[in-house]
Amino acid sequence: MSGLLQEEKVFKDPVHKYIYVQDQTIWNLINTKEFQRLRRIRQLGTCFLTFHGAEHSRFSHSLGVYEVTRKIISQFERNGYEDWPREERLLCLCAALLHDVGHGPFSHSIEKTFGTHHEEWSCRIVLGDTEVNRVLKEVSPTFPQKVAGVIAKTYNEEIVVSLVSSQLDADRMDYLLRDAYFTGVNYGMFDLERILRVMRPFQGHIVVKESGMHAVEDYLMSRYQMYWQVYFHPVTRSAEVILHKVFQRAKQLYEENYEFSFMLSPLLSLFRQTLSVDEYHLLDEAFMQTVLMQWSREADEVLSDLCSRFLNRRLFKYVMLEHIDVQQIERLRETMAGLGLDPAFYLEIDFPSDLSYDVYRPGEHDEKLPILLLDQRDTLTEISRKSEIVRSISGIHMGKYHLYFPEELLRAAPGALTEEQRKLLRLE
Amino acid sequence: MSGLLQEEKVFKDPVHKYIYVQDQTIWNLINTKEFQRLRRIRQLGTCFLTFHGAEHSRFSHSLGVYEVTRKIISQFERNGYEDWPREERLLCLCAALLHDVGHGPFSHSIEKTFGTHHEEWSCRIVLGDTEVNRVLKEVSPTFPQKVAGVIAKTYNEEIVVSLVSSQLDADRMDYLLRDAYFTGVNYGMFDLERILRVMRPFQGHIVVKESGMHAVEDYLMSRYQMYWQVYFHPVTRSAEVILHKVFQRAKQLYEENYEFSFMLSPLLSLFRQTLSVDEYHLLDEAFMQTVLMQWSREADEVLSDLCSRFLNRRLFKYVMLEHIDVQQIERLRETMAGLGLDPAFYLEIDFPSDLSYDVYRPGEHDEKLPILLLDQRDTLTEISRKSEIVRSISGIHMGKYHLYFPEELLRAAPGALTEEQRKLLRLE
Amino acid sequence: MSGLLQEEKVFKDPVHKYIYVQDQTIWNLINTKEFQRLRRIRQLGTCFLTFHGAEHSRFSHSLGVYEVTRKIISQFERNGYEDWPREERLLCLCAALLHDVGHGPFSHSIEKTFGTHHEEWSCRIVLGDTEVNRVLKEVSPTFPQKVAGVIAKTYNEEIVVSLVSSQLDADRMDYLLRDAYFTGVNYGMFDLERILRVMRPFQGHIVVKESGMHAVEDYLMSRYQMYWQVYFHPVTRSAEVILHKVFQRAKQLYEENYEFSFMLSPLLSLFRQTLSVDEYHLLDEAFMQTVLMQWSREADEVLSDLCSRFLNRRLFKYVMLEHIDVQQIERLRETMAGLGLDPAFYLEIDFPSDLSYDVYRPGEHDEKLPILLLDQRDTLTEISRKSEIVRSISGIHMGKYHLYFPEELLRAAPGALTEEQRKLLRLE
Amino acid sequence: MSGLLQEEKVFKDPVHKYIYVQDQTIWNLINTKEFQRLRRIRQLGTCFLTFHGAEHSRFSHSLGVYEVTRKIISQFERNGYEDWPREERLLCLCAALLHDVGHGPFSHSIEKTFGTHHEEWSCRIVLGDTEVNRVLKEVSPTFPQKVAGVIAKTYNEEIVVSLVSSQLDADRMDYLLRDAYFTGVNYGMFDLERILRVMRPFQGHIVVKESGMHAVEDYLMSRYQMYWQVYFHPVTRSAEVILHKVFQRAKQLYEENYEFSFMLSPLLSLFRQTLSVDEYHLLDEAFMQTVLMQWSREADEVLSDLCSRFLNRRLFKYVMLEHIDVQQIERLRETMAGLGLDPAFYLEIDFPSDLSYDVYRPGEHDEKLPILLLDQRDTLTEISRKSEIVRSISGIHMGKYHLYFPEELLRAAPGALTEEQRKLLRLE
Repeated sequence: MSGLLQEEKVFKDPVHKYIYVQDQTIWNLINTKEFQRLRRIRQLGTCFLTFHGAEHSRFSHSLGVYEVTRKIISQFERNGYEDWPREERLLCLCAALLHDVGHGPFSHSIEKTFGTHHEEWSCRIVLGDTEVNRVLKEVSPTFPQKVAGVIAKTYNEEIVVSLVSSQLDADRMDYLLRDAYFTGVNYGMFDLERILRVMRPFQGHIVVKESGMHAVEDYLMSRYQMYWQVYFHPVTRSAEVILHKVFQRAKQLYEENYEFSFMLSPLLSLFRQTLSVDEYHLLDEAFMQTVLMQWSREADEVLSDLCSRFLNRRLFKYVMLEHIDVQQIERLRETMAGLGLDPAFYLEIDFPSDLSYDVYRPGEHDEKLPILLLDQRDTLTEISRKSEIVRSISGIHMGKYHLYFPEELLRAAPGALTEEQRKLLRLE
Repeated sequence: MSGLLQEEKVFKDPVHKYIYVQDQTIWNLINTKEFQRLRRIRQLGTCFLTFHGAEHSRFSHSLGVYEVTRKIISQFERNGYEDWPREERLLCLCAALLHDVGHGPFSHSIEKTFGTHHEEWSCRIVLGDTEVNRVLKEVSPTFPQKVAGVIAKTYNEEIVVSLVSSQLDADRMDYLLRDAYFTGVNYGMFDLERILRVMRPFQGHIVVKESGMHAVEDYLMSRYQMYWQVYFHPVTRSAEVILHKVFQRAKQLYEENYEFSFMLSPLLSLFRQTLSVDEYHLLDEAFMQTVLMQWSREADEVLSDLCSRFLNRRLFKYVMLEHIDVQQIERLRETMAGLGLDPAFYLEIDFPSDLSYDVYRPGEHDEKLPILLLDQRDTLTEISRKSEIVRSISGIHMGKYHLYFPEELLRAAPGALTEEQRKLLRLE
Repeated sequence: MSGLLQEEKVFKDPVHKYIYVQDQTIWNLINTKEFQRLRRIRQLGTCFLTFHGAEHSRFSHSLGVYEVTRKIISQFERNGYEDWPREERLLCLCAALLHDVGHGPFSHSIEKTFGTHHEEWSCRIVLGDTEVNRVLKEVSPTFPQKVAGVIAKTYNEEIVVSLVSSQLDADRMDYLLRDAYFTGVNYGMFDLERILRVMRPFQGHIVVKESGMHAVEDYLMSRYQMYWQVYFHPVTRSAEVILHKVFQRAKQLYEENYEFSFMLSPLLSLFRQTLSVDEYHLLDEAFMQTVLMQWSREADEVLSDLCSRFLNRRLFKYVMLEHIDVQQIERLRETMAGLGLDPAFYLEIDFPSDLSYDVYRPGEHDEKLPILLLDQRDTLTEISRKSEIVRSISGIHMGKYHLYFPEELLRAAPGALTEEQRKLLRLE
Repeated sequence: MSGLLQEEKVFKDPVHKYIYVQDQTIWNLINTKEFQRLRRIRQLGTCFLTFHGAEHSRFSHSLGVYEVTRKIISQFERNGYEDWPREERLLCLCAALLHDVGHGPFSHSIEKTFGTHHEEWSCRIVLGDTEVNRVLKEVSPTFPQKVAGVIAKTYNEEIVVSLVSSQLDADRMDYLLRDAYFTGVNYGMFDLERILRVMRPFQGHIVVKESGMHAVEDYLMSRYQMYWQVYFHPVTRSAEVILHKVFQRAKQLYEENYEFSFMLSPLLSLFRQTLSVDEYHLLDEAFMQTVLMQWSREADEVLSDLCSRFLNRRLFKYVMLEHIDVQQIERLRETMAGLGLDPAFYLEIDFPSDLSYDVYRPGEHDEKLPILLLDQRDTLTEISRKSEIVRSISGIHMGKYHLYFPEELLRAAPGALTEEQRKLLRLE
């Protein structure tokens, strides 16, 4: 069943115009139920509550990552670069397509509460008793293992891993363009075609010709802008905070043997941390939204209130904190408790940082592979050593603490808040 | 609470760049739970299974219709047109925003099976005991009734109705642009700014200056292309056919007192045709997808199979029929039954036509208001009398019958199908 | 010198993003002085006086035609179509690049006055003692003759000619997109990538797969819109009329042995109809504008006035005529003469039609090759027999007569015009 | 004649979609011969030799600057900002429209050789005996003086000057977007609508709300990219170098009483530095290109050769120099002289810097007004004190020396160049 399709298949895509499928294996993977499930997982989690256009799914993004990878490889092949290991083509394409197949609904909040990890689930789906696994095994018995290796970044060919996961990988290139397109912000637009033209395989790395330095600067600036304008937008974070509180509360209730009026098996297994690959399949975003909707009618007032807030977009308000005064926060907790708002579920201090969303930090521990420039004398230099712009971005650490709290606090009776607290909450 | 907002609110929108909210009432309507629910209803139903980008919601579209209406009115006001009834501004904006608030999940299939109607539900939500109703009543006690009147097209000012519902209304202008943007097809792109500039109120109608005739032609050609390229795409119809069969089967099972292993109240009321506004709120697309997912594990094989097909996108295949040979179809039904495929649920003849999706038919019964051109001597002429292009589109009737059936039929044992049937299904 | 370049050359292009040059011959042709001269000829002649963005040159367009041709051929090669004569690749590319190399400044008006013809000049440049000719001869001694044959449409392989010159050729595909881009109108935007995907060589023709019919309809509608919105815009025609009058007057003066205070050799040869290829090279748009500028100071008042009108954009006004009343026009001529406006140079009746700008007329005499659809049974059908839209466009004949005249006529003393004339000129 | 037009006039513009003219004065200014002349001056000088799309004129740009200014003012008026001096509206619009009216052809090279200055010419045209002056005087007798004051930045209302000329002015906002559009590079695209929304008048300055900081960062990054990718592109500079050499040579010949076979009056006055406003009008780019074309046939070989190089795009080659070794350059001059290439006209060291093209340097002497952020407590802060990105850009100084020389040098006989010189010219 592997090999080329008799006739190329084409998907219309708003970002890349068309997505071309030439391999039977890729076509079969797209048609597995595990890959189709990605249609039911939004790419940007709660971001649609800030940017209403951001309703696109991980399905679209995964096709996009595949397409960018296909374009890169096709350029490598057309140019006949000797350092490109041609035999790895299908492996790269499969890993690109499947790298997010383990993503669950609202990954951020669920992973934070239940300690799951989407990359691990991707590997479980690739290796488990799944349609995906069956398709991959048709290539060769060890092929699933190789794909899982690339996703887990343990595969021994750096060049393969770096196509899917590095500072300049197909994953980021697609999501920046796609998220910019669907949110409608212009910031994420960079010249993909130009970047592809300056990439080349070189001594086991994917590198960039020095003449393409400005194109990479532009791409990194897009990243910088998208992070602060879109990904770390405080309204999106506010929705994440509420979701996290929902799951925390539910977990607490479960542990206290609370009788949920609505409970379905995959949810139970999530609480028990015994999710099977089969049950994981049921756990899509439609499911989680139905759970939230049903729980918005639960007897437990904290749980039902938090769910309603999320569904009806009555999000927490926020203020930015220059620094954190622990005692001041403590006093606010007490005040809130006095007003009947349990601070464990109605107050949060959030610091926007996410390893996968760093702008660019070469050389740091546990970092993705850095971007290397190749000059005319075939010397490699890490980009921030040549580009002042990149150097200045790398050093930037713009995260600010935000305090999230319900709007009711702002409408509390006069005298309910101290003057210090009114200042903190920008009431005067 | 009505009146202007202290500070204009802005939504980032990929189609119109920004959506501007200036009225407290509009702001409050957007924040009702009934309007927020539209985030959980896809604008194009099953179309995302054909065009993966088409995952946008009726929430985005409703904001867009509001924005187009706001732009039209603002142009009318800036030009000081005397025939524009300025006092109807807020009514137009509210009706534009709310005209789709009653849409349910996969409206097409559900309405077909259960006889509900989204326009009716929009009115029930506007008039019922809802947050939307409370916001509207703050404008005036009779305001909800007026808004419902505009939505139901019974309001006595044609000019108000026609902004929201005519051959050149804000609804279509937004959806053509939006659906083109999200699917990624270029066909729907027309020059909105130019069309807005040539519209004007005149003697109780919205008309178009004759100099804008070509702009309208372009808009109608966009419509024509979108209908045949996107809205009537046979793959989308195939998914609709399956959904319809799912609901038919479930209804049949319910009527036969089948014991569903998964059943929730709004669904039960849907079967019983006793849905309340409150229950309707729960019936969003997340809910319906969860139902499909749960039913994909039902004991009834027809139901579970059809649900799996939909979720995992194993849609029905199709062939185009030049005409229908009733006896031939009858023989095919028998053959299918012999193969264990109940033709009641596995065979469908579909004819793509939908009154709301006609390209343009002036003067026909029950039609939306036609497009009138205003010449320099203040004479009105229906556009197809001046434009050969429009005239030729109006007459076009391109629907073709399609026969939908499961792929298994194509793989049936040799001899299972007659030669006639093999030809019909394009097997030879 | 022929063969592939060591390294692909790339031009940044706003319409196609990048233009790729792989052949040494193409690179050398671009660098000839005859091709570089196209930078000094505007693509749309006087259209920039209507759409100020339309300042792009035939240089850009010629590169674009080359690039579209390259893309088509590359698709044919990638798909391995047997009916594609691979050995004609370079010939197609060269003819595509050079088809407009003989265009002069403001071709329309100059060709009309002096009877020159740009296609003929293209062939003279290809065959004459030019840099272009020398580059082509490096391919083979007979190569220039072949290129000229394709340009003149006498080459015996229809498939080669039709790439550059047919109803669906690279020339039109580029200019529709390019002119739309630079003028800023949206009408010309069609989905180039999709059209390229459905084209294929078949039995000596370039045909379109039937599944691509709607894409071709969209392309033809773009053409229709561009013709009436851009190419036949009456303001552009007004500028053409003035230019034509300028050249007519100058020719008349020359024939009357008028002493021009400014006259340069290529101009003289144009009057004498003895232009050599060498002199033709000097005759670019910069030259003609300098001539107009200098002539705007000539002693002859008609000549200087007409030149000033063109340079300072004081164009003729116009009215549309439903039909032509010869005697009425005659009376107007007399009135104008009485007002000191020589009607030979200040009045024109224009009918917008141009064989190269027909929307689509299959089968008519002297027509470009029609568009053929290829169905699944390998039958060819001319498109207007399958598409109602195309059929209706083909029949449309929308040209209207326009009467052009100077604005002064509208400001003539009361009584200078008869009532009939005031009505004709829309003064009452 | 001043006042509002009866009916708004509209220009189709590819960058801003439409340009709206509401004032009779603006309409009349556009129709002056001095403003129409800008159609014959390219916006980006020689840049079209690098980016072939860059053929747009200063006419388009000037309309664009006017439109951006109009949008800013209209936003200020709509929001009713008290710090906006409403009576200055027309002054701002006129100055915006006319700020470039004094630009000549290839300003850079001509200004460098002959010491003219376009801003001075703008003022001469505004104040001299011109159509522009007559239109302005209709507003009030002192109005031309005021417009000239704004252009010369001496007008006493900073807020008026800064709209047209500051670090965030309408001029730059238009040219970045326009130049990006016509060259086809994406780098210059920033979100104009968002920047306009965050600008406001405040205590005599135009400032930016702090919440718009990221939008300004994005705009400054666009500038940074456009400077290095487009404005300082070494191929464009190469063409400038040649033009400069042409004018230097011609000036030298003139001073040596050389008999030019082609010479016209405005050129003579340019040499004599006695250009009148009337003669300046004749000096457009068409004229200069005709001069170059005629001079390409002059007897003086240096002059004719340089002109041919420019017209036929046989530009100088270049190498980047890390530093300048004066003696090495001196030796190269000698070598070139020995090869018959006069180093005075065939060698140039260029350093790309241009005060009008700095990325952003707040507080430096003679600088344009810096960008000020307004926080919620109404405090103003210069942006680079809050934004690390801006701070890092401000410090960047990326200019590199380039050595320009004719390609012939690379093909000189073996032994003609020393080993050092071959290294310098990258021959080995």
